[in-house]
Amino acid sequence: MGKVFVIGIGPGGEDYMTPAAREGIMSSDVIIGYKTYIDLIRPILGDKRVIDSGMKREIERCSLAIDLAEEGHTVALVSSGDPGIYGMAGAVLEVKGEKNSPIEIEVIPGVTAVSAAAAVLGAPLMHDFAVISLSDLLTDWDVIKKRLQLGAEGDFVIALYNPKSKGRVTQIEEARDIMLQHRKKETPVGIVRNAKRRGEEVIITTLGEMLNHSIDMLTMVIIGNSNSFIQDGKIITPRGYHL
Amino acid sequence: MGKVFVIGIGPGGEDYMTPAAREGIMSSDVIIGYKTYIDLIRPILGDKRVIDSGMKREIERCSLAIDLAEEGHTVALVSSGDPGIYGMAGAVLEVKGEKNSPIEIEVIPGVTAVSAAAAVLGAPLMHDFAVISLSDLLTDWDVIKKRLQLGAEGDFVIALYNPKSKGRVTQIEEARDIMLQHRKKETPVGIVRNAKRRGEEVIITTLGEMLNHSIDMLTMVIIGNSNSFIQDGKIITPRGYHL
Ligand SMILES: C[S@@+](CC[C@H](N)C(=O)[O-])C[C@H]1O[C@@H](n2cnc3c(N)ncnc32)[C@H](O)[C@@H]1O
Ligand SMILES: C[S@@+](CC[C@H](N)C(=O)[O-])C[C@H]1O[C@@H](n2cnc3c(N)ncnc32)[C@H](O)[C@@H]1O
Repeated sequence: MGKVFVIGIGPGGEDYMTPAAREGIMSSDVIIGYKTYIDLIRPILGDKRVIDSGMKREIERCSLAIDLAEEGHTVALVSSGDPGIYGMAGAVLEVKGEKNSPIEIEVIPGVTAVSAAAAVLGAPLMHDFAVISLSDLLTDWDVIKKRLQLGAEGDFVIALYNPKSKGRVTQIEEARDIMLQHRKKETPVGIVRNAKRRGEEVIITTLGEMLNHSIDMLTMVIIGNSNSFIQDGKIITPRGYHL
Repeated sequence: MGKVFVIGIGPGGEDYMTPAAREGIMSSDVIIGYKTYIDLIRPILGDKRVIDSGMKREIERCSLAIDLAEEGHTVALVSSGDPGIYGMAGAVLEVKGEKNSPIEIEVIPGVTAVSAAAAVLGAPLMHDFAVISLSDLLTDWDVIKKRLQLGAEGDFVIALYNPKSKGRVTQIEEARDIMLQHRKKETPVGIVRNAKRRGEEVIITTLGEMLNHSIDMLTMVIIGNSNSFIQDGKIITPRGYHL
């Protein structure tokens, strides 16, 4: 009987992939993942069997991983960042349940995009924060809007995954409007594209100005809380120490 | 002029420390950190100058790091997990501002405790989640309570850092009571002690039963949302795929 590793490769740069992730990949004979992520780790794959596929084929990939493991293969299912945060960990466990499969599934955590983006921005998290995906592909937009509202009300720092894609452009505008009902337009906002991987771009702006900058699906948006401030081009959310 | 690296070493096991963290440590000549974390990386420190200190000395450590960098040293300030999540990144940037120091500070992100604990539990996050620290040392308990309330109301998965310490035992009880106002007592709860490091202990329980288990400051508590379920000893929060 084989096994499935669900592996978080981190934000993309090899420097941020943990030894555990690398070992998981090395000990697998089949590697499955979304093409963009596979490309990030291509250099270490050697002549392993690689199955890459387009987006939105998550369930197909998970099902294939389990079938191959049942045939005796050790399979690495690769996610960017951490597989437990909008990654493949949940889907593969659900498919395992659906198939009633006895296959062992081991999740290997990774550095998630919010940590990578925060590091680039300085220290915008530090205090309590809420992680919200703006993708309404699998979640009702009303549920997401309610979370944005409550997160804003609770003065959480807000980290937005999947802020915008080619076909999905209004959500980030609505999200900003909701934030503005609870936070000043001077509230610091960090926009990081390709955090900690090739092509990194960083913008430090404010809630008032954020929509003047380009945001896409390779971007993470972090909105400060009422105490966040900008210092020397970094965003800091103070924890409350007396200096 | 020296430099300060603020380094996240991950949950503790060497397998989960990124190459970037290791390189940051290797290229530093002074290593500063809370004793427990220094001990986790002692094997790779060789004969570097090590300054370890007790807890609650964060500002002192940050100030020392900047002073030493101004003297020309390369200093690694070590945090567990990710330094941007209840770690040292914010404090050192604040102290830099306070001292008006020109020293460069580079934050190296790491695998944070919530990712490590989630991996051990299966896939409890997957959907939108809120990260809350129950420590009221630096934050008013009223603010924390409000966040717990709003997080519960928004059906966020809730990740509790610093759930309990020797001197701070009632917060986790109040937190649970707040959750119970919005969630069923059957809601899955994961309690992970020493996730992804020596001494790992995992408990899968429910909101109703969670207080019957031991929780301490080496523990992470993850409370599922209204859709979370337990399957074969793992917690899964479904993302919403049609299987
Ligand atoms: C489907 S989610 C996958 C998240 C991933 N599992 C993680 O833990 O980082 C994809 C979204 O994550 C964010 N993201 C992932 N990697 C990123 C990076 N290196 N820089 C900025 N944002 C990133 C973007 O918001 C993107 O739309
Ligand atoms: C001061 S915070 C530091 C968090 C750290 N910077 C991070 O990103 O993981 C300490 C709290 O993190 C949690 N924690 C840190 N490492 C953990 C681990 N390996 N297993 C479980 N909980 C952990 C516990 O709740 C602990 O009380």
